[in-house]
Amino acid sequence: MSTYNLLNNNNIGIEIYSFIEKLFPICRSITGNGTRKTLELIKQHIPIEINDIPSNTKVFDWNVPKEWNIIDAYVKNSKGEKIIDFKISNLHILQYSISIHKKISLDELKNHLYTLEEYPNWIPYKTSYYQENWGFCMSYKQFQTLEDDEYEVFIDSTLENGSLTYGELFFKGEIEDEILFSTYICHPSMCNDNLSGVSLLTFLAKTLIDKKTKYSYRFLFIPETIGAISWLAKNENNVHKMKYGVVATCVGDSGQLTYKKTKQGNTLIDKIVEKILVDSRDSYEIVDFFPTGSDERQFSSPGFNIPVGSLVRTLYGKFPEYHTSADNMDFINSKSLQDSFTKYNSIIHVLENNVIYKNQNPKCEPNLGKRKLYDLIGANKELPSNSNSIFWLLNQSDGNTSLLEIATKSNISFIDIKNMADILVSHDLLTIVN
Amino acid sequence: MSTYNLLNNNNIGIEIYSFIEKLFPICRSITGNGTRKTLELIKQHIPIEINDIPSNTKVFDWNVPKEWNIIDAYVKNSKGEKIIDFKISNLHILQYSISIHKKISLDELKNHLYTLEEYPNWIPYKTSYYQENWGFCMSYKQFQTLEDDEYEVFIDSTLENGSLTYGELFFKGEIEDEILFSTYICHPSMCNDNLSGVSLLTFLAKTLIDKKTKYSYRFLFIPETIGAISWLAKNENNVHKMKYGVVATCVGDSGQLTYKKTKQGNTLIDKIVEKILVDSRDSYEIVDFFPTGSDERQFSSPGFNIPVGSLVRTLYGKFPEYHTSADNMDFINSKSLQDSFTKYNSIIHVLENNVIYKNQNPKCEPNLGKRKLYDLIGANKELPSNSNSIFWLLNQSDGNTSLLEIATKSNISFIDIKNMADILVSHDLLTIVN
Amino acid sequence: MSTYNLLNNNNIGIEIYSFIEKLFPICRSITGNGTRKTLELIKQHIPIEINDIPSNTKVFDWNVPKEWNIIDAYVKNSKGEKIIDFKISNLHILQYSISIHKKISLDELKNHLYTLEEYPNWIPYKTSYYQENWGFCMSYKQFQTLEDDEYEVFIDSTLENGSLTYGELFFKGEIEDEILFSTYICHPSMCNDNLSGVSLLTFLAKTLIDKKTKYSYRFLFIPETIGAISWLAKNENNVHKMKYGVVATCVGDSGQLTYKKTKQGNTLIDKIVEKILVDSRDSYEIVDFFPTGSDERQFSSPGFNIPVGSLVRTLYGKFPEYHTSADNMDFINSKSLQDSFTKYNSIIHVLENNVIYKNQNPKCEPNLGKRKLYDLIGANKELPSNSNSIFWLLNQSDGNTSLLEIATKSNISFIDIKNMADILVSHDLLTIVN
Repeated sequence: MSTYNLLNNNNIGIEIYSFIEKLFPICRSITGNGTRKTLELIKQHIPIEINDIPSNTKVFDWNVPKEWNIIDAYVKNSKGEKIIDFKISNLHILQYSISIHKKISLDELKNHLYTLEEYPNWIPYKTSYYQENWGFCMSYKQFQTLEDDEYEVFIDSTLENGSLTYGELFFKGEIEDEILFSTYICHPSMCNDNLSGVSLLTFLAKTLIDKKTKYSYRFLFIPETIGAISWLAKNENNVHKMKYGVVATCVGDSGQLTYKKTKQGNTLIDKIVEKILVDSRDSYEIVDFFPTGSDERQFSSPGFNIPVGSLVRTLYGKFPEYHTSADNMDFINSKSLQDSFTKYNSIIHVLENNVIYKNQNPKCEPNLGKRKLYDLIGANKELPSNSNSIFWLLNQSDGNTSLLEIATKSNISFIDIKNMADILVSHDLLTIVN
Repeated sequence: MSTYNLLNNNNIGIEIYSFIEKLFPICRSITGNGTRKTLELIKQHIPIEINDIPSNTKVFDWNVPKEWNIIDAYVKNSKGEKIIDFKISNLHILQYSISIHKKISLDELKNHLYTLEEYPNWIPYKTSYYQENWGFCMSYKQFQTLEDDEYEVFIDSTLENGSLTYGELFFKGEIEDEILFSTYICHPSMCNDNLSGVSLLTFLAKTLIDKKTKYSYRFLFIPETIGAISWLAKNENNVHKMKYGVVATCVGDSGQLTYKKTKQGNTLIDKIVEKILVDSRDSYEIVDFFPTGSDERQFSSPGFNIPVGSLVRTLYGKFPEYHTSADNMDFINSKSLQDSFTKYNSIIHVLENNVIYKNQNPKCEPNLGKRKLYDLIGANKELPSNSNSIFWLLNQSDGNTSLLEIATKSNISFIDIKNMADILVSHDLLTIVN
Repeated sequence: MSTYNLLNNNNIGIEIYSFIEKLFPICRSITGNGTRKTLELIKQHIPIEINDIPSNTKVFDWNVPKEWNIIDAYVKNSKGEKIIDFKISNLHILQYSISIHKKISLDELKNHLYTLEEYPNWIPYKTSYYQENWGFCMSYKQFQTLEDDEYEVFIDSTLENGSLTYGELFFKGEIEDEILFSTYICHPSMCNDNLSGVSLLTFLAKTLIDKKTKYSYRFLFIPETIGAISWLAKNENNVHKMKYGVVATCVGDSGQLTYKKTKQGNTLIDKIVEKILVDSRDSYEIVDFFPTGSDERQFSSPGFNIPVGSLVRTLYGKFPEYHTSADNMDFINSKSLQDSFTKYNSIIHVLENNVIYKNQNPKCEPNLGKRKLYDLIGANKELPSNSNSIFWLLNQSDGNTSLLEIATKSNISFIDIKNMADILVSHDLLTIVN
């Protein structure tokens, strides 16, 4: 019997927000000390195992890249003024920039500058993981002020053999079938994408500690793409146990929730998330699977075909702040984080409680009156809604129909119908089949 | 070969209405003489068998209740004026009230009064079958005029061992598979709910007398819930023959027709009723199954799972007159009853004629011209609609496709396509497979 | 490996139009020299085989009719003026009129005149294939001017044993499964119905000459109805090889494209045509199968059940010019013919290229960067659309999913995704399964 319950904590949104605040200043990348430090901070909350895969390890069609670490970076004008300073924003550096220190003309400098003309105040986020290069990102507004001058560019970074680091936490359940919650830890100082996903999953994993569950649960805190590929390569033989998954990202902005379906499109995890969204009575959007996006791409590649969806608020790329310095602490809020957390929490709750019941009095309705199960006076066919859930449960519990199916068909919330099922079990009117 | 035809009687609505008028004054309940008298009047039309099940008989989770009969009931004020009089409206009495005769204060009386504040002129209909009690129902308007006084309450009723009485009529067809038409006879003086159903099924059953039919048909005139439960308990071993059913109720009001689907939702009976509604070219509504409602609840409980739908006009509970004194002879009309009857009549007609044909000339079209089957001049691909039905029948009659499927796919009315099928059979172009 | 390519010829519409112009003056019917002459002209373009079936041959429920040839026909008034002259329009003659030469009153003449009151300037097209008769068709406007007079009617025709003539062209492919393209050659001087279909299929067949194809293709140029019946009767034993078909008619008017689905409704040919219409980004209409229409009626009769659809512009009978003298060279245009041709051409192209691929690197995504398959800078989840097609192909190519399915699911045009598939094959990332 599962001991997992919905978390009853109205401050969880604030806690998730605070943890994001703590992680925000760190300069993360797909490898390096920033990522390692992020994982250490997560470990203060939940007992993740921190794993390292050496650079150059072959992982399917890829090789684990060299480890990149950056100490400092700036551009100075001829007056010696730092016009770009990595210490002010770690987005200023093109990720995986190699070390450099030289004086160059404006024209040459411009070949290494990245800006965003449509949003002139924002610094874009850019990477060059797999091609050696160096560069700086800056606001278009500042870029326009650059004068013909001799500039001193300075990047103090290392790109050498090391490792790719990721965090993993596994909760063993009653059955081997496991559910994946995955998020990526490789983005530097941006909040919605993706400290929101990192922090939410940290607190979601916490709810499983010391709980007995039916399913096993696996949490991955990995660098995007190469991290998922590396994990799958390393764990190839056990991947068949992974039945469903959800990728957590962009869960902190003020937009409505969006669910990107799994590749298969109509699996248990899809039905669960859709029901949770319906039950919320809030507006939401459901989008069909598409093969770009985050790590669901790797998990559902044809060699694995694991149904992995993604529950986000505003979809990456659909908000202008995406991959810019504007995706900061002001762009997210604790209310949205609380709401997103509640949905993720509900996913586990439904998974754990989606049992099949069998009506123990299957021939005609039982006499509810003698069991004090509803008001004895009255001959109204429009019964109060809790009576409705009684009748739906009794009518549908044929030993083959899951609670989720009954909740969906009846349009009664999963929680309400689950609570009523407990009452009917206590009256010996229902029994659990599986 | 079925000899069942559609009834061609434009006065059937008036006849159904007149019979309702005759049944209206009787005080019915789930047991007792009113119900028995109602069945005797039905028996003057159709040869129903009237059955009694003794009180206290165990029927699944229930016991047949004691038999209730009421002789008189009133409330007098201190001046001796009858302010509530059962003889004026049998809705004044809370059904299953026990005998009482005493003087009480207004305050005490109020504990036993039922009113309907939203419709202050109407008397509500209330019951207390399974909890001994007594009470009166009255209009809220009159309730407000009650003064502080000493009231004489008088109820002369009996609640003792007797029996539950129901009527049943079975027509044996060529095959054992049987179709249920069920209605409930337990409501006192209310017309739409449910004398309309009782009277309609009486006249529907009449159309089957002395007819040869493919299916067997069973008509039940039973007290709601406990009657259905009792019948199912008594006939448990033969219930597997019951393939589909329809519960008749609320078929006399002026609203559009509504079909409440079976639990299974897409069975033959569902398709038949939907096609009949489409063919009518009138507006209608189709609602999904819900497990509250009338006796379809018992027939489709998981121990029986019989697909039973319900064809009504305005759904119970959706009209304000429901379960009040306003559900009277003015609330129903013969035109609606005629229309409802026609649809019920059509259900049997389609069931009896939904055969599968096989094209006897399956390779290319037969030469219709040489058979004088259509106008020989003309090269118009837009053929007249009766030609359309010829071509649909010939094209689709592959020995697997039923006439109902062809009618539905082609959007030709079942009657029209059936008539054309008869012609093609007479030309040896089609033959009946089953 | 198929060598079939899309025809790249912007003048094909003009060529189709010119060929219609050449065929227009000929008086065709279901038999006779006009039809034979039409087939000879087609043979100047493509190597059709011209077949004759003798009159009176039994073909299923029918007999091949006598051969009808007409030399001349007119009506003269008493002044000797030809008021109706077959030489001016071959629509003036009721098809299959027998010879006559006599003087008759206006009243008697009127029994043999066919007009179209709604469109008073147009001559209707009428036939009397299977009942001996004679008659003239004329504009209603002229009909109204007819005065009481003695008229000389003259028809010089022959109706005697001869043959029914049709053309056939078969392209043998790698597999026996064959695709039918059928059109009818029996209509006299009318353009949209159906010289447009005749000319389009002539040029479509041309694209297959000297090509290696996977499927076999069969082109039929037959008299409508009796021609299809005759062909099916003669080829009954080989019809099982015919897997799908399309009837070409009314492909030259300025209306949008309309696809009439096959009887089965959801077969490969239906999916292909629908995808081609979607890819065009033009408006179009899809209509369900109906069993009147053209020769799809015979091919999908229950004895054969071949899925045959019809891709037309404005559906026959839906344009007022249908079966009148107004269906002339002005009613069609080369732009529409070009567009219709392109779609028919695409049907073969999709059939030939709808292969199933298998991802050769199925576990996680391959490293596209090292293969120079997309821009190496950038971390944007919203990839450019050609990257999208890469990811769709890699994600979906599990060895079971056809290219058409991937194109449909991704809403990427078949051409675009096919081009990208070729690139991925050249990089050994995909391989063809079937």
